[in-house]
Amino acid sequence: MENVLKGAALFAQSGGPTAVINASAYGVIRTALDSAAITNVYGAANGILGVLNNKIYDMGAEDADELARLMNTPSSELGSCRYKLKSADVDDTDYKKLLDCFRRLEVRYFFYNGGNDSMDTCNKISQYLQSVGYDCRVIGIPKTIDNDLCGTDHCPGFGSAARYIATSVAEIYKDTHVYDTGAVTVVETMGRHAGWLVGAAALAGLADCAPDLIYLPEIAFDMEQFLADVSRIYNATGKCLIAVSEGIAYANGDFVSEAKTSSTDGFNHAQLGGLASILANIIKERTGAKVRGIELSLLQRCGAHLASKVDLDEAFGVGKFAVERAIVGESDKMVVIRRTGNAPYASEFALEPLSLAANSEKMVPREWINEAGNGLTQEFIDYALPLIQGEANRATEHGLPRFAKLKKVLV
Amino acid sequence: MENVLKGAALFAQSGGPTAVINASAYGVIRTALDSAAITNVYGAANGILGVLNNKIYDMGAEDADELARLMNTPSSELGSCRYKLKSADVDDTDYKKLLDCFRRLEVRYFFYNGGNDSMDTCNKISQYLQSVGYDCRVIGIPKTIDNDLCGTDHCPGFGSAARYIATSVAEIYKDTHVYDTGAVTVVETMGRHAGWLVGAAALAGLADCAPDLIYLPEIAFDMEQFLADVSRIYNATGKCLIAVSEGIAYANGDFVSEAKTSSTDGFNHAQLGGLASILANIIKERTGAKVRGIELSLLQRCGAHLASKVDLDEAFGVGKFAVERAIVGESDKMVVIRRTGNAPYASEFALEPLSLAANSEKMVPREWINEAGNGLTQEFIDYALPLIQGEANRATEHGLPRFAKLKKVLV
Repeated sequence: MENVLKGAALFAQSGGPTAVINASAYGVIRTALDSAAITNVYGAANGILGVLNNKIYDMGAEDADELARLMNTPSSELGSCRYKLKSADVDDTDYKKLLDCFRRLEVRYFFYNGGNDSMDTCNKISQYLQSVGYDCRVIGIPKTIDNDLCGTDHCPGFGSAARYIATSVAEIYKDTHVYDTGAVTVVETMGRHAGWLVGAAALAGLADCAPDLIYLPEIAFDMEQFLADVSRIYNATGKCLIAVSEGIAYANGDFVSEAKTSSTDGFNHAQLGGLASILANIIKERTGAKVRGIELSLLQRCGAHLASKVDLDEAFGVGKFAVERAIVGESDKMVVIRRTGNAPYASEFALEPLSLAANSEKMVPREWINEAGNGLTQEFIDYALPLIQGEANRATEHGLPRFAKLKKVLV
Repeated sequence: MENVLKGAALFAQSGGPTAVINASAYGVIRTALDSAAITNVYGAANGILGVLNNKIYDMGAEDADELARLMNTPSSELGSCRYKLKSADVDDTDYKKLLDCFRRLEVRYFFYNGGNDSMDTCNKISQYLQSVGYDCRVIGIPKTIDNDLCGTDHCPGFGSAARYIATSVAEIYKDTHVYDTGAVTVVETMGRHAGWLVGAAALAGLADCAPDLIYLPEIAFDMEQFLADVSRIYNATGKCLIAVSEGIAYANGDFVSEAKTSSTDGFNHAQLGGLASILANIIKERTGAKVRGIELSLLQRCGAHLASKVDLDEAFGVGKFAVERAIVGESDKMVVIRRTGNAPYASEFALEPLSLAANSEKMVPREWINEAGNGLTQEFIDYALPLIQGEANRATEHGLPRFAKLKKVLV
């Protein structure tokens, strides 16, 4: 095989945690450990920061059974970061550190697992390594509950988050319809700019527990229309269950949460949150109803106990595919998922240029949102439903999830 | 059998929903339908309100398979209420309505499923029926995630809520330890006066994800000591995971949440909530740390997807036991659970006077809380751990929980 490149593989996780990002880690690490071309498998602590700060684990030192339990472990087991690399033209300090590290450890394979910001990082690193003539195959592995990466049908992490949201909304529906007194409930999901997550609340309709109203960031928010919608339903039925994305914004672009604090996440996105309470208070003032705001908060992204098998298998698959394709010579690409069937659901993996996903966002198509802009159409359901299917085979111990226990031996 | 009393059975659900209260409903309904002594099985809508307002369902008209799915359905499927019966000495209007209903439907068995307030209601009804010489066997069936009923080792509903809390705290731990930046997280559980629920957060320690600090309503809250504890841990480790009960109060009895609004739940308890955000803001001001407040909200009581098998089986069992004992002549009693072994765990059902649980609350013993008052001891773990064991056999459809679909035919 002429394309064989011998050397170490380095893997890192970036951006917000998901229920299944460690399944991608396992896909990469297991496949790399089993590969003849790859001499050592390293994992950087806290994403690219571990590379820059020389905090790197030897994944070959881990117990195989514990590594396998990464399939059952939410969040980013190696740690994550939200660190934005400067352009190498402006300041190449970080890139030089990275090159030193790669040279020292003889890294010839670099796998970076994250969302659009991470694909940008991955792209920059790939460009830099090419510019200095360092032979290294760089593959981006998609991950984000936000499901907003361009170039892929959907993102690992989304299916499990969608399942968590749909299941929780169904259970909340049951709870909030229990008294004969009036009740308005506002459930807030994540989703800064794209409405995929809040849209998943519509799936609860399959359990006869659909929210009455769903608000996505894709539709300019109109407070008066919102209050009119809520009042109409509440007055007719005595109940109203509403799902809102944290990222809903007025036509002028201002977030409804108005929580634009000075604290940012490193990428100049405003920190959002607390929207459910804000809306609950406004509804209470207007209607006099008993209103409860519920923020699904971190659990929607780390609720591995509700991971979907489809999502878990694909998350493992994209990691495995990345290594397999790098070994045969691919580089400077991102793994994507292509849907090859919907009834029954089937998918395959492919590669696309890193630049396709870097710093762009895929929105819910307007035609998948109802005309009034407060609900989803059957097309959205058809798209999302296959992704929440299947029970993950969750190992438990003491009645609790049994997470991987890694030694994390530093090199 | 000399004690045979022929007549209809009436069942109702009261108080806050739980993940398994419908399992008790199924225990009652299935056993009553199968009994020769019981002629008809009725279910009142919204607890005692259904009796007073003549909204009563014929449970015999339901499909057997759908009834069985009550095992898989959270919240109170027949509806609930928080209605406080006046003392019959003061005003017997409600009691007369109830007697009319019982006479009309020939009700000779009354089963009321709820917490301490509901046992009080049940006790009053039992006393009234005796005082007017109406022959009816009255049995209270315990239910409350709060686990604060006297006379029973624990309450159906608690084990599943504890499992939800412990699992969620473990997952949140994983999520909040992912960045190398500082993070303080405050997780708020329910529990107005008793700390059983927040104590369950300690179980996450079995997954190596224990909260650093746990605050129960049983211990007078000291804000300065709290901030000192948080700062000490945060300064040492860069992280701090805190679990607090909504009901923590200062030594003078004032709730820390200070959310004593005019809106009450019908029993003159203040409506609590929002404590996590309040504490998060105070910690942020004091330490400058990035702080997130997470309220587990309704999901801790309606998260049936995490129901424990031990809890589900016992919830069914107390309902079945109530009917069986009523048929052989018992009345004016509440079903309790006695722990007969802990390794392995075993329990049995028994009857105690209704007055034992009515309007009293069982607190976490002081010796099960650590000396500093910010954590639980091994005794608490040994008590709570057996109750979260076992996977409930959850039926799903479309990747979502498959809830019971009842016809609810009015009589």
